[in-house]
Amino acid sequence: MTVTTIDFQWPAGFYNDGIEIGLGTVDKKDFGYLFSEVPATAAGTYTTNQFQAAPTKLTKNTINHNHHLQAVVVNSAIANSCTGVQGEQDAQTEQQLLGEKLGISPDLVGVASTGLIGAPLPMDKIKAGIAQLQPATDDGVTQAVLTTDTHAKKACVQVELDGQTVTIAGFCKGSGMIHPKMATMLGFVTTDAAIDGELLQHTLSTGVDTTFNQITVDGDTSTNDMVVVMANGLAKNAELTSTTDADYAAFAEALHVVLGELAKQIAADGEGATKLVECNVSGAFNDQEGQQVAKAIVGSNLVKAAIFGQDPNWGRIISTIGATDAHVDIDHVSITLNGILMVQDSLAVPFDLDTAVDAMKENQVTIDVTLNSGNATGQAWGCDLTYNYVKINASYHT
Amino acid sequence: MTVTTIDFQWPAGFYNDGIEIGLGTVDKKDFGYLFSEVPATAAGTYTTNQFQAAPTKLTKNTINHNHHLQAVVVNSAIANSCTGVQGEQDAQTEQQLLGEKLGISPDLVGVASTGLIGAPLPMDKIKAGIAQLQPATDDGVTQAVLTTDTHAKKACVQVELDGQTVTIAGFCKGSGMIHPKMATMLGFVTTDAAIDGELLQHTLSTGVDTTFNQITVDGDTSTNDMVVVMANGLAKNAELTSTTDADYAAFAEALHVVLGELAKQIAADGEGATKLVECNVSGAFNDQEGQQVAKAIVGSNLVKAAIFGQDPNWGRIISTIGATDAHVDIDHVSITLNGILMVQDSLAVPFDLDTAVDAMKENQVTIDVTLNSGNATGQAWGCDLTYNYVKINASYHT
Repeated sequence: MTVTTIDFQWPAGFYNDGIEIGLGTVDKKDFGYLFSEVPATAAGTYTTNQFQAAPTKLTKNTINHNHHLQAVVVNSAIANSCTGVQGEQDAQTEQQLLGEKLGISPDLVGVASTGLIGAPLPMDKIKAGIAQLQPATDDGVTQAVLTTDTHAKKACVQVELDGQTVTIAGFCKGSGMIHPKMATMLGFVTTDAAIDGELLQHTLSTGVDTTFNQITVDGDTSTNDMVVVMANGLAKNAELTSTTDADYAAFAEALHVVLGELAKQIAADGEGATKLVECNVSGAFNDQEGQQVAKAIVGSNLVKAAIFGQDPNWGRIISTIGATDAHVDIDHVSITLNGILMVQDSLAVPFDLDTAVDAMKENQVTIDVTLNSGNATGQAWGCDLTYNYVKINASYHT
Repeated sequence: MTVTTIDFQWPAGFYNDGIEIGLGTVDKKDFGYLFSEVPATAAGTYTTNQFQAAPTKLTKNTINHNHHLQAVVVNSAIANSCTGVQGEQDAQTEQQLLGEKLGISPDLVGVASTGLIGAPLPMDKIKAGIAQLQPATDDGVTQAVLTTDTHAKKACVQVELDGQTVTIAGFCKGSGMIHPKMATMLGFVTTDAAIDGELLQHTLSTGVDTTFNQITVDGDTSTNDMVVVMANGLAKNAELTSTTDADYAAFAEALHVVLGELAKQIAADGEGATKLVECNVSGAFNDQEGQQVAKAIVGSNLVKAAIFGQDPNWGRIISTIGATDAHVDIDHVSITLNGILMVQDSLAVPFDLDTAVDAMKENQVTIDVTLNSGNATGQAWGCDLTYNYVKINASYHT
């Protein structure tokens, strides 16, 4: 089971395009699509926000219908969320128009939007945009989905299944309003693997739990976001149909690598962030509590601000642990920050402050915590809280 | 039942002192005490953090022993938290020494600390400090408890009980690490009312639920914090012993006013804050959900940053509502910001942007939300997220 990370390339049979149709105030690509030359099995995970946006609801219903998609139309700048009946009609119109253009059933078209909540889509621009889309092999769509992201986020691996080389290529956007309980960003994964749709759904849902659902930028869960996987089978491996298939574990691992890489890229590019923060919890009572504690630590404003300030303030970490309801041996917690032991048996361990501050100047800060309450682990990723986070979010509307 | 707010004054028989003994790096009062000339009934609420600091545990045990206190010794700058057996001994030594100085049992002395987690108390300075304390009638102790607070927080009311004028005077500290599940700050309320200790505990616990437990600055729950009430009976009203006593409701209301005023002062003085944010939720399924939604809104980093930027970004408010698991009629939510209706039936209502931005320049921003799911309400208070919040917390250690 060798999963090899490679430079980004589309799996066999996938095309895309990204263009600028003037949806936002920034001069960037804001509209695009993703297209497989044959129908693909498909799976998705969707935001748990009660105000699920029109495109998110529509894509969920479309995928759940029979777990197949052949194309996805995406836009940034406008979320088409909290837009009522009009918003639902607009999302359906996008689905219909892209289906007509590609000569496929609208039931095979997913729709995704991200951006400002409450504004309607300008459908004249959308219609003109759909007419312009061309099947390209560059990465335009990976640019078109971005909002406050500073760069495109992509990950690609190859793995051998049934003697065939399978490629899994994913991209995503997400920078603010990131605290997935399901998927709080837009993520798209394409693969030429052959896999049953329901099994793909199971694999995605499991993979998301320990990747996208374990990142946080600001604790806010968006109305729009989703992760969609399309598998078109053009790699010609024998179709995976069960978790007990010989090659299933390799596929699941390869997909997990892509999801994990994308999730970490989102955390590292959190709004205003200067550092990726990774928290590894061990000694947890169970996996759920390990993940809970890890996510609480990377989600604490005080921890995040301290990391921005390169301040090895472990008191905020232990306080955050204690504020959870996870099982904790309160007399035997250890905390290590970028390799420097700071707390053992819940007591301060003397360390050299200058060395610790220097260690925190790295682009990644790693916090290792042991709870001494069991054998389970948990991981989570976040970023520091900076002046720029405040600046970006204090002036988003204008 | 007339509760009258008056300028701060100590109730009959209470004295205090606040002095500087050099615990921190800032030139300010950092040590003090509070003292009643007769034993008082006492009640407390304490942080729910699993790592409860030594002074917090000691005071909780002392009060729970028989609900009486006569004095409290307090310090700022050092939290005496995560300090192990030494920390527990140090807190007991403080209790013992203040008892000896005042000629009272150590069982009548509470201990409170706030500041940096993990550092030991310098007991030589503490001992010298206790020796220096004098029974004054100014407000030195209200200064001595402060950390990153920009000013002392005090509230005082009078109410007539049984023909006697009763004074209730409270003060508190709290600026960062504020997200009480019980009490995430230090709060002290003194009164000359006569009230049974267990009834006082009930009254405090109930009052805290809708006041201190409904404020948030940064979502972090501290290890140290508590609210303590002392009632010394010198107003000579007939002792309140039951919630059915004729005057009980008046006392409870008066105490609630003091707790509410103190809580709002903490929210308004949150680290780096420029504005108090008040959220009023109506149409909630029950009180608990109303409070949950109100607190989620004032706790959202995105909402807080938008308010700092005077950006009427209601999308972040509705997204925060949807991210809770409270009952919400998702097609009939209304949102009003400083009196301007922005969302009705979950859809955008056109409003003049300049007028809305102007309205948000006030020192207080009020968010009114209707969930249309019941008849219950909830309130919460917070503050905006500013550059200064980041600055203060990125450089706390040094």
